Amino acid sequence: MAGSPSRAAGRRLQLPLLCLFLQGATAVLFAVFVRYNHKTDAALWHRSNHSNADNEFYFRYPSFQDVHAMVFVGFGFLMVFLQRYGFSSVGFTFLLAAFALQWSTLVQGFLHSFHGGHIHVGVESMINADFCAGAVLISFGAVLGKTGPTQLLLMALLEVVLFGINEFVLLHLLGVRVWGGMESGVGGGQGQPLSQERGGGGGVLPLTPPPQVRDAGGSMTIHTFGAYFGLVLSRVLYRPQLEKSKHRQGSVYHSDLFAMIGTIFLWIFWPSFNAALTALGAGQHRTALNTYYSLAASTLGTFALSALVGEDGRLDMVHIQNAALAGGVVVGTSSEMMLTPFGALAAGFLAGTVSTLGYKFFTPILESKFKVQDTCGVHNLHGMPGVLGALLGVLVAGLATHEAYGDGLESVFPLIAEGQRSATSQAMHQLFGLFVTLMFASVGGGLGGLLLKLPFLDSPPDSQHYEDQVHWQVPGEHEDKAQRPLRVEEADTQA
Amino acid sequence: MAGSPSRAAGRRLQLPLLCLFLQGATAVLFAVFVRYNHKTDAALWHRSNHSNADNEFYFRYPSFQDVHAMVFVGFGFLMVFLQRYGFSSVGFTFLLAAFALQWSTLVQGFLHSFHGGHIHVGVESMINADFCAGAVLISFGAVLGKTGPTQLLLMALLEVVLFGINEFVLLHLLGVRVWGGMESGVGGGQGQPLSQERGGGGGVLPLTPPPQVRDAGGSMTIHTFGAYFGLVLSRVLYRPQLEKSKHRQGSVYHSDLFAMIGTIFLWIFWPSFNAALTALGAGQHRTALNTYYSLAASTLGTFALSALVGEDGRLDMVHIQNAALAGGVVVGTSSEMMLTPFGALAAGFLAGTVSTLGYKFFTPILESKFKVQDTCGVHNLHGMPGVLGALLGVLVAGLATHEAYGDGLESVFPLIAEGQRSATSQAMHQLFGLFVTLMFASVGGGLGGLLLKLPFLDSPPDSQHYEDQVHWQVPGEHEDKAQRPLRVEEADTQA
Amino acid sequence: MAGSPSRAAGRRLQLPLLCLFLQGATAVLFAVFVRYNHKTDAALWHRSNHSNADNEFYFRYPSFQDVHAMVFVGFGFLMVFLQRYGFSSVGFTFLLAAFALQWSTLVQGFLHSFHGGHIHVGVESMINADFCAGAVLISFGAVLGKTGPTQLLLMALLEVVLFGINEFVLLHLLGVRVWGGMESGVGGGQGQPLSQERGGGGGVLPLTPPPQVRDAGGSMTIHTFGAYFGLVLSRVLYRPQLEKSKHRQGSVYHSDLFAMIGTIFLWIFWPSFNAALTALGAGQHRTALNTYYSLAASTLGTFALSALVGEDGRLDMVHIQNAALAGGVVVGTSSEMMLTPFGALAAGFLAGTVSTLGYKFFTPILESKFKVQDTCGVHNLHGMPGVLGALLGVLVAGLATHEAYGDGLESVFPLIAEGQRSATSQAMHQLFGLFVTLMFASVGGGLGGLLLKLPFLDSPPDSQHYEDQVHWQVPGEHEDKAQRPLRVEEADTQA
Repeated sequence: MAGSPSRAAGRRLQLPLLCLFLQGATAVLFAVFVRYNHKTDAALWHRSNHSNADNEFYFRYPSFQDVHAMVFVGFGFLMVFLQRYGFSSVGFTFLLAAFALQWSTLVQGFLHSFHGGHIHVGVESMINADFCAGAVLISFGAVLGKTGPTQLLLMALLEVVLFGINEFVLLHLLGVRVWGGMESGVGGGQGQPLSQERGGGGGVLPLTPPPQVRDAGGSMTIHTFGAYFGLVLSRVLYRPQLEKSKHRQGSVYHSDLFAMIGTIFLWIFWPSFNAALTALGAGQHRTALNTYYSLAASTLGTFALSALVGEDGRLDMVHIQNAALAGGVVVGTSSEMMLTPFGALAAGFLAGTVSTLGYKFFTPILESKFKVQDTCGVHNLHGMPGVLGALLGVLVAGLATHEAYGDGLESVFPLIAEGQRSATSQAMHQLFGLFVTLMFASVGGGLGGLLLKLPFLDSPPDSQHYEDQVHWQVPGEHEDKAQRPLRVEEADTQA
Repeated sequence: MAGSPSRAAGRRLQLPLLCLFLQGATAVLFAVFVRYNHKTDAALWHRSNHSNADNEFYFRYPSFQDVHAMVFVGFGFLMVFLQRYGFSSVGFTFLLAAFALQWSTLVQGFLHSFHGGHIHVGVESMINADFCAGAVLISFGAVLGKTGPTQLLLMALLEVVLFGINEFVLLHLLGVRVWGGMESGVGGGQGQPLSQERGGGGGVLPLTPPPQVRDAGGSMTIHTFGAYFGLVLSRVLYRPQLEKSKHRQGSVYHSDLFAMIGTIFLWIFWPSFNAALTALGAGQHRTALNTYYSLAASTLGTFALSALVGEDGRLDMVHIQNAALAGGVVVGTSSEMMLTPFGALAAGFLAGTVSTLGYKFFTPILESKFKVQDTCGVHNLHGMPGVLGALLGVLVAGLATHEAYGDGLESVFPLIAEGQRSATSQAMHQLFGLFVTLMFASVGGGLGGLLLKLPFLDSPPDSQHYEDQVHWQVPGEHEDKAQRPLRVEEADTQA
Repeated sequence: MAGSPSRAAGRRLQLPLLCLFLQGATAVLFAVFVRYNHKTDAALWHRSNHSNADNEFYFRYPSFQDVHAMVFVGFGFLMVFLQRYGFSSVGFTFLLAAFALQWSTLVQGFLHSFHGGHIHVGVESMINADFCAGAVLISFGAVLGKTGPTQLLLMALLEVVLFGINEFVLLHLLGVRVWGGMESGVGGGQGQPLSQERGGGGGVLPLTPPPQVRDAGGSMTIHTFGAYFGLVLSRVLYRPQLEKSKHRQGSVYHSDLFAMIGTIFLWIFWPSFNAALTALGAGQHRTALNTYYSLAASTLGTFALSALVGEDGRLDMVHIQNAALAGGVVVGTSSEMMLTPFGALAAGFLAGTVSTLGYKFFTPILESKFKVQDTCGVHNLHGMPGVLGALLGVLVAGLATHEAYGDGLESVFPLIAEGQRSATSQAMHQLFGLFVTLMFASVGGGLGGLLLKLPFLDSPPDSQHYEDQVHWQVPGEHEDKAQRPLRVEEADTQA
């Protein structure tokens, strides 16, 4: 810490060496284990007599692209609100997500689609990998401005593994029956091959066990997990001297507008996020519709509450940028279910109001009483709405009937449809899934915090939080100098 | 107006109470009336033996997402050009559109798809709701900076109803025959179930009457209606003292760049906007293609005219940001027809030039002579090009022949195909549709203006137009202070 | 050059007259030659008994929209990094691309799909036109800030023609056999009608000859061609006095954030770019997947190298904004092939590191030794990675076996599948394609440079490079003045 030359050299090399090591190791593991699946491999695809129109690519890729935009544009720019941390917000989002999607392809692959010694990849694994990157970025929001890129990469390294294990437990271990082969990711009907989805064709035995817990849009596995992992980690990294950097913790006018780019892209594409892995046909359709309504209602709830609690009735950009998105989080579990359009509106409105109140009243308490410094307020946007979303999933699953779902019950609650479980039992499993997630997130966040406190890691000192110059070559000129008109001598030469 | 404490309390509560009331009422109406349609409902979808690939979701959702991006990103950022009104531009766009899409789901549902006491929703109703939100945002552009959020929500409340009625009249009441059941929205072939679209399968009687007036991309129902509604409303709200706020009516360098985000997203996704509700297959394909060419030509026309009329031959950002989009508006009615690629280029070029000239020469006259203060120049971007687009629709419809459309005539002009109407008669109906739209917009805008002048409504005073601080908590620090390098004492502690 | 009034009038009229002439000529050529193809024409589409779901629109349009976003949002904002050239960067991108897509529709149409005296257009020609616009924008990056819009339009006029010819030579003239009819564009399996793609149905003879050289994502035809065309052109336009404008050649804080919008949109949609024209089914799926991995690895490589070579270990925004995208360029040729996920990672990592090193060490040499002033460093982002991508294509094509591709060999390497060529021969053809492209680009760039040096063309003087005010009416107020709080007298009147 003495600013000695060796320290400087250490700092200079930590990030590049870690990047090179992680990329090298990932590449080697890819070489050994990762293969195209039968929908991407030239030989395998053409071996079966498919119509090209049946390739899952056409059903999932447009949603994937929306998810991809959310992860990189949405999360990246949402965090640009800090006045002096825009390069780091969007840059480290870029770095973390680019690493997390590779690493989670491996971790999720080993856990969910490891057959014959190989992991098989396609558009579904791309979506699952991006989902996991989303969880990492949620955790990043809790420690934004207080950690260096080396620390963040190590956080991602750990979090991706725990994300995968938690998801695996929820999908496959919470029930009783044990299945042989396993394939596929978060909770959708995605395990069944397309040819089976359509026409209800029989004969082929499903290779994938039905998920024990449904969580297609990740209220639990993504939002709750990512938020509490990050919050506990932030607790362990508690910085009592953070007020030294308080003057940089706010926004400026244009940084708030950049952040709204993130907000709006998250908002418009959230229906695709929740629907990306749900059952084809009415399943994806209904999921997108429910999410659309929920977001609209959470936006009105956020504006109402922000003006109500705001100084002199004025709106607060922090609320609009964040709480308006809570409607997407809160229906992550239930939007594939028969939530009803009214249910979506009610859930979204509740989430928007709770989230806004959280930003206003709970974030200060979280810091002062619980010593959790939550830079982006992920507890309000992902934590509480995620838990609410999980509980909403418990409720809606508990109300599932054969009458309401008809033959569609098979694609939402296969275990109920097959008579292996009652709706109440499904609800209990959902609730248990929430507890497991909270446990994994908390323990994992604690471990992560200890890891990031390793003394040799390059961590910014208290007076240099929320500051790009620690990590980036920042252009030195002031904006106002740059924006001036042509100098006189230049204007003279103008033809 | 005396700045008394009770006034302040009134202002503080107007917005939250109105938001809560509107959201509450909407939720109740949703609970009573809104249900999943047969393509989103789990039981209904699986009852019929569909292939999942046939779900309308896969044909319309990618276009919907583009429309959604246009409404929230496009309109939102296009209006950020004002130097001190960026929070309000993007924030109120967010609020208005989130409310309008819920409310128009109800209004359009009652008018177009009310069966057995219920409104049935799916991706088509989502697109129609977003279209209506687009019209509200066009009107918002005319009064941008001069109205508070409470006023804007009331404007939306009224405008959505009139939008729905105008659309209903154009689609269903302008002809002679009266049909039994009615379903679906703006002018596309969307009423016919998918199974009928494909393979031309017979047997099933169409539930929806063919639209009397074609306007798939809304030259009339969206652009003309939204523009003249807003312009008349702005006339009623005329502010003679507006020069008190003139110093904030311009842009600054970066606000113009933010506005270009809006422009470019509107521009790239406009082909999807016009195609979102047209007939499947060649219909959507042709609509997107025509719009693509029209926009390209309007861009060249705009650059040419902007440089021609610009001071010292310099380009004007206002023209580029707006007039280049007129090519999308002008083919709103005709892009689904056999406009020909040349026709698209010619129409787009005409719209771009007319729009640019409007910004340069007509907007000042509109304010000085007609007392219409049109902040965003919606008359130039949506008004004139919308009317031109309607007239182009009259022309192209009048030229329709069985030879040119072949069996595709059924999906563009069903009434001509069925021999109930000649091409000339269709053209007359189209023209009449324009007059009806102008009438609804003008009367509606007048009513809206009276509504917004209600004395108890919170309206910003003349000296505080185009100013975020009236409605928002704006970060107080100047940018240049924020952008300064690390202070010396900080740099000292840097390792 | 004396600043005489006639000169000013000349400058005032050059751009508008050229725009009007180009748009007028294009429109006339469209009227004479351009027609809807059988998938967009109302009569032709309905004549054949297609299912609407089979319309190519549904397989290519979502990818097209991503490509469209890359061209207009991605390239446009990527170049906004200059502190005083944002209007020109995004504005001239808009103008150039809007012209290039029309002009290349004609040029590519004459060369690739001219039947019966007509060019037939649809979603495929839209994608090909946008690809060509992309090449023009790459060249624009090399001369950014040093050329006026008139010069740029003339550059596009020439470059589009040479792009089309180069592509034609690569696709059709590099082999021996001569075919009768020709249809379609850059290297994908897009020539085969859909009905043939699916089910492998026989009977119909292919109208399109198989491409001699594969280059679906344009490592050669787009990136290598665009880069070296621009670099040679920039060499011819060499400005020895450019240091007079050096103080404007850097970025400012917010201009770098705007540029990251461009970067991220390019990054997220690049999988669609490479996949837009590949064979349907597994082909598009695999291409997107490979590009996704390659980009992720190039991002880690870029961060590693940027920190390694950066001053005091700090990251450089120029590297992150650009080199992280090299992973998309480097797999442009090979991503449709059986590159393997590991191959994609390795290629992307290599491209990211080479590109970063290029920015750090080679760009200064390029200027000082070779007198090539490469504003955006297109040599690092498109030039070297494009050549690497072509060589990777040589390698992967040379390794193609019937075993690895199975029946999919037909859609990737039809000439190998049909036994007309060995894998080694295909590799040689690929290599020859690279040389041809380099030759066309160099000679073309030289011609372009001579064209742009015509003395009567309006070119900004040395002291006014990188300056919007030469071409645009720039808002005069400084940001900091605009960002100030309400004035006291205003605040007083506030209720």
